[in-house]
Formats: sequence, C-alpha cells, structure tokens
Amino acid sequence: MTGRDGGAALTRDPRAPVVILVRPQMGENIGAAARAMANGGLFDLRLVAPRDGWPQESAFRTSSGAFSILEAATLHATVADAVADLARVFATCPRERHVIKPLLTARGAAAELRAVAAAGLRAGLLFGPERNGLDNDDMARADTLVRFPMNPEFNSLNLGQAVLVMAYEWWNAADATPARVLATHETRIATKAQLENFMRHLLAELDACGFMRVPGKRPIMAQNLFHLFQRGDITEQELRTLHGVVAELTRGRREFGRVVLDENDLPVG
Amino acid sequence: MTGRDGGAALTRDPRAPVVILVRPQMGENIGAAARAMANGGLFDLRLVAPRDGWPQESAFRTSSGAFSILEAATLHATVADAVADLARVFATCPRERHVIKPLLTARGAAAELRAVAAAGLRAGLLFGPERNGLDNDDMARADTLVRFPMNPEFNSLNLGQAVLVMAYEWWNAADATPARVLATHETRIATKAQLENFMRHLLAELDACGFMRVPGKRPIMAQNLFHLFQRGDITEQELRTLHGVVAELTRGRREFGRVVLDENDLPVG
Repeated sequence: MTGRDGGAALTRDPRAPVVILVRPQMGENIGAAARAMANGGLFDLRLVAPRDGWPQESAFRTSSGAFSILEAATLHATVADAVADLARVFATCPRERHVIKPLLTARGAAAELRAVAAAGLRAGLLFGPERNGLDNDDMARADTLVRFPMNPEFNSLNLGQAVLVMAYEWWNAADATPARVLATHETRIATKAQLENFMRHLLAELDACGFMRVPGKRPIMAQNLFHLFQRGDITEQELRTLHGVVAELTRGRREFGRVVLDENDLPVG
Repeated sequence: MTGRDGGAALTRDPRAPVVILVRPQMGENIGAAARAMANGGLFDLRLVAPRDGWPQESAFRTSSGAFSILEAATLHATVADAVADLARVFATCPRERHVIKPLLTARGAAAELRAVAAAGLRAGLLFGPERNGLDNDDMARADTLVRFPMNPEFNSLNLGQAVLVMAYEWWNAADATPARVLATHETRIATKAQLENFMRHLLAELDACGFMRVPGKRPIMAQNLFHLFQRGDITEQELRTLHGVVAELTRGRREFGRVVLDENDLPVG
C-alpha cells in the first residue's frame, strides 16, 4: 500500500461511538467515511462484509490522511458480530420503515450518544450500503433509528456525507464554542474614550467646513455619526487610520479654502 | 452536455442565502457543492472566476441530479460583483485570521441567516478555493466569519462537505422535527389494558409451571417482568405474538408434564 506516510495523528476517544459500515460497496466511500469520522473525533471503524474485501487502497487514497482509523478498522461477517460488545445500536435510516423504534434526528441522536457514553456504555452507529441502505435484518439489531432532517425534495446523502453529519453532531454535542464571538486576535478594540476623541476630531472638522450648516440638525447628525462608528467594534489601529483620513481630507480645505464635497458643490475662490 | 435528464425538481426559496464559490478549482467540487445545497434547501449558486471556466460537465456528473442549481448558477469576475446585491456576507474561514469581525459557529451563522431572511434581507455565504481558502481581499467583503467546531486534530473539510454543513444547519435552523419521536407507522402501540391482559396470561402460566417457586419472591419477580414488558412500546401485533409464544411454550408442559427449562433441568417421566 502506498501513500500511508504523513497520516494525521488522531486521538482515540474510548467513549465515542463505533461506526459500523454494513456491506459498503466502494472503497472510496470507506475512505470518505474515515475522513468524516476524523473530523468529528470518532475513531473506531467496523466493516461488515465490504463488497471488495479489506483493506482497500482506494479507501486510504480518499481518507485525506485518516489512515490510523482505516488501519485499526476491524472486519466482521455479520452485523450481529459487529455489535456484539455494544450496549446501544443506532441505525441511520433515510427512508420510512414499518418498525416500532424511537426515531431521532441526528442532533437528538448525538445527545443520546453523549448520555450513553456518560453512563459508561458503548454505542454503535450503523450505516447501510450505498444503494439500498440497511435491510430489515440489520434493523432488527438496532435500538433506535436516526433520520437527518433534510430537504425532502433531495434527501440522499452519500456514505461519507451521512457519516459527516453524525460525526459533526457528535462533536458539536460536547463543543463549548460560543455560537458568536468577536474575532480579535492581535489588534485591540478601541475604548470608548478613544472613540469619543475621534468623534470630537471629526465633528470639529465638520463644523469648521460647514458640513452641518443647519444648526437645528446638528445634534441628530452627530448622533447618526456616533451610531455609525459605534457599530463595528472599531479597533485602535482603525481609529488611528480614521484620524489620518480626516486630517488628510481637511488639508484640501486648508490649502484651497474649501473642501470639495460633491460635484454640485465646487470650490469657490 | 450529457446526463442532464432526470435531474431533481428543486424549489427555489428566495429567502435562502446565496452560495458563492470563490475561484473553485475542480468541477467535481462545484457539483458536490450543488448537491449539498440541494440537501439543505439552498438554490442560488454564484461562481467567482472558476479555474476551469463554466459550465463544466464534471460538475453536473457529481451533482447527483442537482442540475437545476448548476443551470441557474451565475458567473462573476470578482467577489465584489458576486455580493453586489446582498445585504450580509458570511465568509467560511477554517483558519484564524487577524481581522476584527464577529466569528460564528455554523449553527450560530444559520440562526443569523434565518434572522436576516426574516428581516427581508438577502445574505450570501462565501467559500474559498480548495487549497488556500479565501484571501484577505475576499475577507474584506464579508461582515461575519463562520468557523465550524470540528476536531482540531483533523479539521479540513472539502468544499462539498463545507457547503453540506452550512446547508444542513440552514435547513435544521427552521426544521420542526422533534429530536425524538416514536416511529409507529402502520402498527399500533398496545394499550395498558392489553399489556395487563398478556401479563395475567404469562403470570398464570408461570404460576402453573412453578417458575416462581419461592412465594415471598413472587411480587418482585412479577414487577421485574412488568418493567421489562413496559419498556419497549410494545405493539398489539407483538402482544399477539407473545400470547402465542407463551401458549406454544406451555404446550410442552401440558404434553410431557413438565417444561424443559435448561439442559440441567431435564423432563422427568
């Protein structure tokens, strides 16, 4: 096998669910599934009767470096064998089935998988073959069905995408990233005093050039400008730039007596 | 172009965000992006300077029938042109950037995209080229960054997967599927009276065969069996089967005088 060097170093979380691909047809899809597992912190892969045997070079090629998952994958003759040591089995199931089982969304399943893991139990996720999905005998080994809410006009996912949705939901079910933060990194957000200082500079120059000619309108115009510059989490560096912009723009007025405001407002004398 | 027949009929939601692929390299990835858009109910696709021109047959081949999205896709020379009519631009951004912008998770971004749509505004989602992602000039056209929480050991997604995560979150942000339901379909869950009736049958036969020999333990054993049969949302059909199972198993006792319990408990005379 070629191309195994340089695979990603992946940590195995022993509480994470096992991914079980049932009779997968294409090696490429096994590789895509391994890649998606790595994205969501899943590691243990079990293959039930892959059509073209195992290992397959095509799987390594499409795994984007998730080699350690493929190398540790185990081969099983039957679903019963692949789930033998597990306490809970979830079956992904895009189509309606006439069986009585709890049916979860991907997000609901991820929450239950976290609860199962927290109880010290091991769970498995069954994914069916590319074309036909899991058969009724496979389904009879599952405790719970999982169906992803998707556009009903177009709800087919390939194997790698289906594994990605579950792996993504598993990861996100325990992820503490706030839904919204402010990316600041190296530069610093200006303080309100720094903003106030710039606004004084700007308003003084606007008063000087006559921009706010109608006296009664000055307060509302000043407020509007305050609102505008308040909005964008302005940084210290950006304020320095704006001070420079105002200084440069007003140089024209100083040199020629009056700044050009627009084409209808030409400089006089 | 071949293979355009039989494409999926897709509804265009005019409130849904536009997907903008910036300098995409591979036609296959444009097709995978269109497929993922269809999964999540997105329709409007804009292509900024695709490396190999447009249209590309390879995109249609990998779109799984999302042809109408590709056929309606528009071609743009610059990001500025592609976002010109939009009110909000979200840039997907896997790596850290030294810019000051709000940074959202995919789920946070989906919630904001729904809020923007509810305000009657049109938003766009920028996705960068396969290898390098969006450049700083592209980023300067965005209001907001989006970064998906993912395993930091392995957080690269291909273009189709990145679009899938956003399309999936967009769809799920307005999806009302309960996280857990009971799949019932055609068969009916048994009523408690039907369950009680079966339990009377079972316990009567167990009393008759002497299974609950120790009189003081009968109540707890009966409770345990009640708990067991309460657990699985048992159906009317399953109860009929269980009545039959009990009847068949007890036939042995009637015929041979005593039921075979296990290998150490052979029938006598």
